Amino acid sequence: MPRVNEHHLAIKGSYLFSDIAKRVKAFGEANPSAKLIRLGIGDVTRPLAPAIVRAMQDAVAEMGRAETFRGYPPETGFTFLTELIAAHDYAPRGVNLTPEEIFISDGGKTDSANIGEIFAPECVIAVVDPVYPVYVDSNVMAGRAGRATENGRYERIVYLPATAENGFNPALPDRHVDLIYLCYPNNPTGAVLGQDALKRWVDYARREGALILYDAAYESYIRDPAIPRTIYEIEGAQEVAIELRSFSKTAGFTGVRCAYTVVPKACMGRSAAGEAVSLHALWFRRQSTKFNGVSYIIQKGAAAAYSPEGQKQVRESVDFYLENARIIREGVAGTGLAVYGGTNAPYIWVRTPRGLGSWDLFDKLLNEAHVVSTPGAGFGPSGEGYLRLTAFGSREQTVEAVERIKTRIRL
Amino acid sequence: MPRVNEHHLAIKGSYLFSDIAKRVKAFGEANPSAKLIRLGIGDVTRPLAPAIVRAMQDAVAEMGRAETFRGYPPETGFTFLTELIAAHDYAPRGVNLTPEEIFISDGGKTDSANIGEIFAPECVIAVVDPVYPVYVDSNVMAGRAGRATENGRYERIVYLPATAENGFNPALPDRHVDLIYLCYPNNPTGAVLGQDALKRWVDYARREGALILYDAAYESYIRDPAIPRTIYEIEGAQEVAIELRSFSKTAGFTGVRCAYTVVPKACMGRSAAGEAVSLHALWFRRQSTKFNGVSYIIQKGAAAAYSPEGQKQVRESVDFYLENARIIREGVAGTGLAVYGGTNAPYIWVRTPRGLGSWDLFDKLLNEAHVVSTPGAGFGPSGEGYLRLTAFGSREQTVEAVERIKTRIRL
Repeated sequence: MPRVNEHHLAIKGSYLFSDIAKRVKAFGEANPSAKLIRLGIGDVTRPLAPAIVRAMQDAVAEMGRAETFRGYPPETGFTFLTELIAAHDYAPRGVNLTPEEIFISDGGKTDSANIGEIFAPECVIAVVDPVYPVYVDSNVMAGRAGRATENGRYERIVYLPATAENGFNPALPDRHVDLIYLCYPNNPTGAVLGQDALKRWVDYARREGALILYDAAYESYIRDPAIPRTIYEIEGAQEVAIELRSFSKTAGFTGVRCAYTVVPKACMGRSAAGEAVSLHALWFRRQSTKFNGVSYIIQKGAAAAYSPEGQKQVRESVDFYLENARIIREGVAGTGLAVYGGTNAPYIWVRTPRGLGSWDLFDKLLNEAHVVSTPGAGFGPSGEGYLRLTAFGSREQTVEAVERIKTRIRL
Repeated sequence: MPRVNEHHLAIKGSYLFSDIAKRVKAFGEANPSAKLIRLGIGDVTRPLAPAIVRAMQDAVAEMGRAETFRGYPPETGFTFLTELIAAHDYAPRGVNLTPEEIFISDGGKTDSANIGEIFAPECVIAVVDPVYPVYVDSNVMAGRAGRATENGRYERIVYLPATAENGFNPALPDRHVDLIYLCYPNNPTGAVLGQDALKRWVDYARREGALILYDAAYESYIRDPAIPRTIYEIEGAQEVAIELRSFSKTAGFTGVRCAYTVVPKACMGRSAAGEAVSLHALWFRRQSTKFNGVSYIIQKGAAAAYSPEGQKQVRESVDFYLENARIIREGVAGTGLAVYGGTNAPYIWVRTPRGLGSWDLFDKLLNEAHVVSTPGAGFGPSGEGYLRLTAFGSREQTVEAVERIKTRIRL
């Protein structure tokens, strides 16, 4: 039998979502008539915008005719899409990117997991705690995490706690790190970074020779014009940051699958011999060798999100979820609980009262309000004492859930 | 600047397709009125089957309605598709697979490149030479190849020459190897393996404790009922083989993007401590962590290829390409050149005459017949002295190309 990759055996089983499923199942069996409302999952529920539906219908029809059939797409994306991205998502914010600096992929999860491949296993990574688990798990698989410790962390990863005490704006690492994963608007806390806070990170990276992997999957939820939509709004960021984005939460593409990653040509790494190496060239080679591009049909759908009609429809969906976020935020705050996020972000981060654990409040919400949430402890040790609620439900269910929390929960 | 992955720097630039593009461009500039015919690229040209088009149109419409909208797909595929695959592609050949042993992905290239992640870097790999370059390049990137040698190979990879002299049926490795990449019907030689020849490999793997990565992307081109369509037709293969398949060349999905990989639950690797480790569990974890599944729309299109109407239409397309293959094979053989493959396979492998090099015959075809081919040397040292032609063109262009080769080429 061939030897397996030991690093893949080093992942601590995350039982978060299966634990949730088990408790929900047990509750359902004990309370068969209870009507559960799920505010735990970060998945969208609104249908695709009509402009996107029409564009994909047309693209499917094109693929069914000999004259317009298309075979292999370019591995890094069609220029009809990368040009739209550069023109709509970056140029209006004063950021100049060429279409070749934008790599189309099937998902932000895929990209955030794969991007680590181009870096040396010795690189030290830093993550904000609580954290989107893929950043950590993919680095465990790459052999970059070291041993698991008893407190739910890994030895070689630098954790940067983000809690109410520091306003969810973590301190800079107290030692040298090579790669820093940042996600703003943040999953799970809903925190955002203003110009100065983001500049602090870019300055750190420039000073330390570090690289920022900036996950901006939720940027379309930013409505405050003073908050940067892209890290490249900070001067010098193109030399020290790769930005990851997705159509999942913007255009409702969780079931459609399209995302993109920006690797500016100015971004450099170094070889063992100390020579500068273009990260753009490395990522291009990685994607050309191990990926065959995103379906023409899907890329046409993504492109339609930039048409005047598509932009309007997509914005309406995001507005809808933001209104849900407001309803949750204000409703839950009305119960006396401390609530964070939910402004310029689809996630609401609730502090548990009186030293209650994440799972205790989860159980209270489940048993007393029949509302499913996500315990903060599932996102890392600093998530203990918090709970995540999401704004992606229907209006009716969101209003009903908040009403139940307000009237049924005894804190 | 962060240290980069040195293994990614170790890849020898493959200039095959850019070299071809350069020569074609130069030819076009010197001969602006020449009508080029491209028989070099392994990409399909026939439109999608009407049943598939209809299924994807319906799926797009479903995604546009709130009642039928779907978010994240299961990371390993919808059971509506994995059940169809088990029932249609395996059960009729006497192979019992459960739907969970079938993992849906966005492409065979992706899977053949990613599957190596679950194995230790120390594993010794064997490839048939000539070879589909992704097997080699992905292993170079994983640090499994060692240094490049002057003869166009890598030090730690075991190459198994497949030439006319051994009937394109390579000898077993003369030393222990851990992973063996086999592709049948073969790209680029068009060779197929009968029951006995395939059994020899399964027996070797069982004896040596090796694992076979069996790329069956072209299995739908097999029309001889005596030739195995899947490696699992060989007894005991489920313990020693992972099979990769794709809808690309079957249902014309090169631009649609859907494939699948079978990892039987009986397939085991071993840990450093010598314990047996389920490869199914490892691949499940890898896919769940680093991939978010294939679009619902695309999977509905793939499922439609199994409807009675879809099966008939897909078979007609494959028949069409097989007829092209026959035209090329017989036509080129009529010129006195030795021709291999092209029966039960979409690739025709042409031997260059009188010790001519691959590139010499390439140039002759380009300059004298205005036909673009692929020089065999681009697939590995044992491809030198051969040329690949593909059956994926239109009928008119295929007939015309063969006519030109017959009448214009002076050998």
